[in-house]
Amino acid sequence: MPTLVLVRHGQSAWNLENRFTGWWDVSVTEQGAAEARQAGRDLKAKGFAFDQCFVSLLTRANQTLNLILEEMGDLWLPVAKDWRLNERHYGGLTGLNKAETAEKHGEEQVFIWRRSFDVPPPLPEAGSRYDVTSDRRYAGLPVPHTESLKDTIARVIPCWSETIAPALRSGQRVLVVAHGNSLRGLVKHLDNLSDEAITKVEIPTGQPLVYELRDDLTPVRKAYLADWA
Amino acid sequence: MPTLVLVRHGQSAWNLENRFTGWWDVSVTEQGAAEARQAGRDLKAKGFAFDQCFVSLLTRANQTLNLILEEMGDLWLPVAKDWRLNERHYGGLTGLNKAETAEKHGEEQVFIWRRSFDVPPPLPEAGSRYDVTSDRRYAGLPVPHTESLKDTIARVIPCWSETIAPALRSGQRVLVVAHGNSLRGLVKHLDNLSDEAITKVEIPTGQPLVYELRDDLTPVRKAYLADWA
Repeated sequence: MPTLVLVRHGQSAWNLENRFTGWWDVSVTEQGAAEARQAGRDLKAKGFAFDQCFVSLLTRANQTLNLILEEMGDLWLPVAKDWRLNERHYGGLTGLNKAETAEKHGEEQVFIWRRSFDVPPPLPEAGSRYDVTSDRRYAGLPVPHTESLKDTIARVIPCWSETIAPALRSGQRVLVVAHGNSLRGLVKHLDNLSDEAITKVEIPTGQPLVYELRDDLTPVRKAYLADWA
Repeated sequence: MPTLVLVRHGQSAWNLENRFTGWWDVSVTEQGAAEARQAGRDLKAKGFAFDQCFVSLLTRANQTLNLILEEMGDLWLPVAKDWRLNERHYGGLTGLNKAETAEKHGEEQVFIWRRSFDVPPPLPEAGSRYDVTSDRRYAGLPVPHTESLKDTIARVIPCWSETIAPALRSGQRVLVVAHGNSLRGLVKHLDNLSDEAITKVEIPTGQPLVYELRDDLTPVRKAYLADWA
């Protein structure tokens, strides 16, 4: 039976500072690293093993994946790194403190940017230090400059269809380490959730979410690892 | 101009204990991790950047690579993991202390196994805890059970021809993190050394070895990073 485990990266420096992080490339905190190591130990203790890993191009996700694999003794596993698993791109909000942003644009507008399904934040200002588009890791890739949750999901789903789903269909046990909003894309697809419903789903950091799937990749069973018997 | 950097993994627990390690999957020590981080900082400080990484399937090489990439801010880079970059397989000597082995088999025999070009150690005893062949990471792969240096080089060269050389030819800057004997294979090939000469080459742990290559992948210049101007 195909098995898929999703992990949101461990706590990052900007989760802590309550800033819009998006594609800004912060590291995990010590607590985030500890969460990742614990996830690896728990996965191993419950008998999980993987054949193929997928991860975004952001440091905090790669750190989390490497710590999980190190604890499992499985640093040798193949890892596919794909920008389409990156966090939602917060455009001009990237790097801003959420309270400061609310002061500047009003609570209501910030709430819409954060919680609506299809309203993207404004584009980054030209020359802003938080404009990540020119980073060489994205050279030649059709990357966005700002995204609604809808936009994020629209690029996560082809990544699923083209890479993750085929791996599962071929019998590989798959680990995906990514971000709050890119994982929402996978959860929306797997659980067949409405646009409205997915905006209310919160995926905690460092807690493996296990899916046992049918051969057609519809879920039989789903639970966080702590509740997985 | 194609650039290739070779790094032998940082000090491992068994380098320290003076045992035959080979394919036994030990971790780097704290000092080995520090060597790897320093290599990453030095590479960055001297302006090196990579497009593609290659690494063996052994933990100590993957740990070293990840620490280098973390220090360079480049954990997003694609990494190809290939068993053909593994350390020489020491067969029945795997796990044995070098002094104990000399007592058992005689100094001269151990010298031949360690330093000859084409004499493989005996096969592992059936059921030995140091028989690594059944590890799932090697499932389905044509892996050896013991190797001379000649045997090791004979499987490193196809890895070079099929994966590393094409990456260099396509203009990618390449980082390879591997082991004393698998790197000897690459150095023998690049420097066109005799069978006798390569048995005398010692590659230190954690010291990046830089090759600047012509388009036909013959070396223009070669130096350890510390001496690279």
